[in-house]
Amino acid sequence: MTGLKMIEKRDNNFRQNSVGIVETMFHSFAEPGNELRLESGDSLGPITLAYETYGKLNRDRSNAILVCHALSGDAHAAGIHEGQDNTGWWDEMIGPGKAFDTNMYYVICSNVIGGCKGSTGPCSINIATGKPYAMNFPFITVPDMVNAQKHLMDFLGIKSLLSVTGGSMGGMQALQWVASYPEMVRSAIPIATTKKHSPQQIAFNEVARQAIMADPNWRDGNYFEYGQPGKGLAVARMIGHITFMSDQSMEEKFSRRIKKGRLNFNFDPEFEVEGYLHYRGANFVKRFDANSYLYLTKALDYFDLSGGKLIPQEKRIDTRFLVISFKSDWLYPSSQSQEIVRLLKRRHMDATYCELNSTYGHDAFLVEVEEQTILIRHFLDKTQNGYMVAEYYDIS
Amino acid sequence: MTGLKMIEKRDNNFRQNSVGIVETMFHSFAEPGNELRLESGDSLGPITLAYETYGKLNRDRSNAILVCHALSGDAHAAGIHEGQDNTGWWDEMIGPGKAFDTNMYYVICSNVIGGCKGSTGPCSINIATGKPYAMNFPFITVPDMVNAQKHLMDFLGIKSLLSVTGGSMGGMQALQWVASYPEMVRSAIPIATTKKHSPQQIAFNEVARQAIMADPNWRDGNYFEYGQPGKGLAVARMIGHITFMSDQSMEEKFSRRIKKGRLNFNFDPEFEVEGYLHYRGANFVKRFDANSYLYLTKALDYFDLSGGKLIPQEKRIDTRFLVISFKSDWLYPSSQSQEIVRLLKRRHMDATYCELNSTYGHDAFLVEVEEQTILIRHFLDKTQNGYMVAEYYDIS
Repeated sequence: MTGLKMIEKRDNNFRQNSVGIVETMFHSFAEPGNELRLESGDSLGPITLAYETYGKLNRDRSNAILVCHALSGDAHAAGIHEGQDNTGWWDEMIGPGKAFDTNMYYVICSNVIGGCKGSTGPCSINIATGKPYAMNFPFITVPDMVNAQKHLMDFLGIKSLLSVTGGSMGGMQALQWVASYPEMVRSAIPIATTKKHSPQQIAFNEVARQAIMADPNWRDGNYFEYGQPGKGLAVARMIGHITFMSDQSMEEKFSRRIKKGRLNFNFDPEFEVEGYLHYRGANFVKRFDANSYLYLTKALDYFDLSGGKLIPQEKRIDTRFLVISFKSDWLYPSSQSQEIVRLLKRRHMDATYCELNSTYGHDAFLVEVEEQTILIRHFLDKTQNGYMVAEYYDIS
Repeated sequence: MTGLKMIEKRDNNFRQNSVGIVETMFHSFAEPGNELRLESGDSLGPITLAYETYGKLNRDRSNAILVCHALSGDAHAAGIHEGQDNTGWWDEMIGPGKAFDTNMYYVICSNVIGGCKGSTGPCSINIATGKPYAMNFPFITVPDMVNAQKHLMDFLGIKSLLSVTGGSMGGMQALQWVASYPEMVRSAIPIATTKKHSPQQIAFNEVARQAIMADPNWRDGNYFEYGQPGKGLAVARMIGHITFMSDQSMEEKFSRRIKKGRLNFNFDPEFEVEGYLHYRGANFVKRFDANSYLYLTKALDYFDLSGGKLIPQEKRIDTRFLVISFKSDWLYPSSQSQEIVRLLKRRHMDATYCELNSTYGHDAFLVEVEEQTILIRHFLDKTQNGYMVAEYYDIS
């Protein structure tokens, strides 16, 4: 095959399976005097939300699916941006014929408030001072993120969501949507997530925050003119990457392999796993804002939908659930997903649970495409067509 | 009971169950020109080892047990120092009538080289320069630690050890004693340990090292006149403490309890688990040298007794083994202890394995006294008396 033919074939494949070229859009709301009231008691405004959409909203506006991103994610969930190579963070799950089939569904993804990817966050300009918010940014919570997304849904004219989904922090938003706007949510697919952050999860986040704030280049959050607190942020992210992988996937990927074939006996990265962590840490410093990391990890730690907050006793909620976890995920272990399912079952909710047998740890929600696709396509189909499915349990 | 009687009773209990007042001793060897040859190819000398002994060496010198400490441990394993309150780190396991019964056995514990508790380490004075070694300290390995301990055994006139034991890094030394001096070791009790550091274990250590070295107060190791790189070392230790506990023990100890009863919405420690980590981190900075932490974590990462290094095919070794692990220990999981046992069984060694059902995580080797005591007393008794015991397996 000639080079030109190969490119043609690649482009055909791409056009067949991808949503293609996409653009991030921005929606601003809450003009001064009409701000978003936050859980902390503070308010925030004006607010801009970065978002992308894929597929088409149908005539009765009944095919919208909201995809929520994880801690370091963004609105760019699928396709590619003009002139760039990298596909969206869930590109393998969103597109024609994929799990979230854009031939059938209208998929929306928006960057959370508090983030640093186009939505209002600590590196946005505070109109009151003309400077970045930095540590004057108010504390935000997962309910606040969802309230901001609700404004976007209103703007898009969406009164009912066929589904809300996401992994990790995205799964928390999916659960929070049900808690905050149950009448709008026909189904939810929380993946590799929890209904409340555990002390171990809080502990990992606190160490990451301490690593950032220990870096003198953090300058109490006012580093904008000087550059990121790179060393601290890299350490924070390295901790994260350990928790995203499983013992087994690290063994398979790195084992005890040495970078230069023999031990250096010095403090440079010697083992491949060390090199990987350094690379990931340095890369993160280029793409993610340190203050956003502080604020978003706090939002995770505050997350707690226990004690009737997910499905209040007095409300009649008929949201359907598909709860997915991964056997080797020790950051958001299956036991936490099983807690969600038990809670739903006690409230007589229509909930299907599946534990997938992946070795990829927490990263599995980004990687295990095939099995998630089968589960999700089936679940969405049944949700849209309105009849019950056989439930299958894997709770061990 | 009067106050005086209460004190008398407490003192009587103390005298009955404790080795009492003990003193750390120091043994120096390897005068210049006669240094310890290290695995890295470098040499180190003169070397001082801090050590303590409890109980009495019997006439035929056959009742000596070497206890090896973990990463941040020291020679003070049992009893109390004159005028001080805190007992040794394994005081509940060493003493009259305890697991390592000082009425029967002569127990030795020595601080490892590379440490900062009296043995030669990076904060010792380098006689070549008259200044602390700092980053000029040579890299040491677990085999080097054991070679230094061998000098101490020679000095004490001990040609045969009834047992070598320890948890975590102490367990690695116990295994290394068998690998290096099999003819000297009648039995070994490696607890909550591994025959080689996994990539996940290396990764946690590398992040801890990066946290220390990211602190500008580390000053490339030359912080002696200025004080420790406190922030970096605290972050390093906080990471450690998360890995020492189990998800369950954290849930039981802290759950999501908030320090001041309600959320602060600020970046001070809000959750009790955060306060605990801060306390542990700050405390560690007062008692442990940052450079020692760098060197000792490297020694852990280098540890690898796979591929016939533990029990060489050609050697006839009749050391007996009692291998202990804890179900909730995810830092040194039971699977690693089971690997040790499988290796021993393939070499037809006399090995007993027990997985204890603790919820304390890696900390269990310091905490789970009762069950360890039953196992160890029985095992030592049979080792000393020379006949076989029934083996019991728990490999799941």
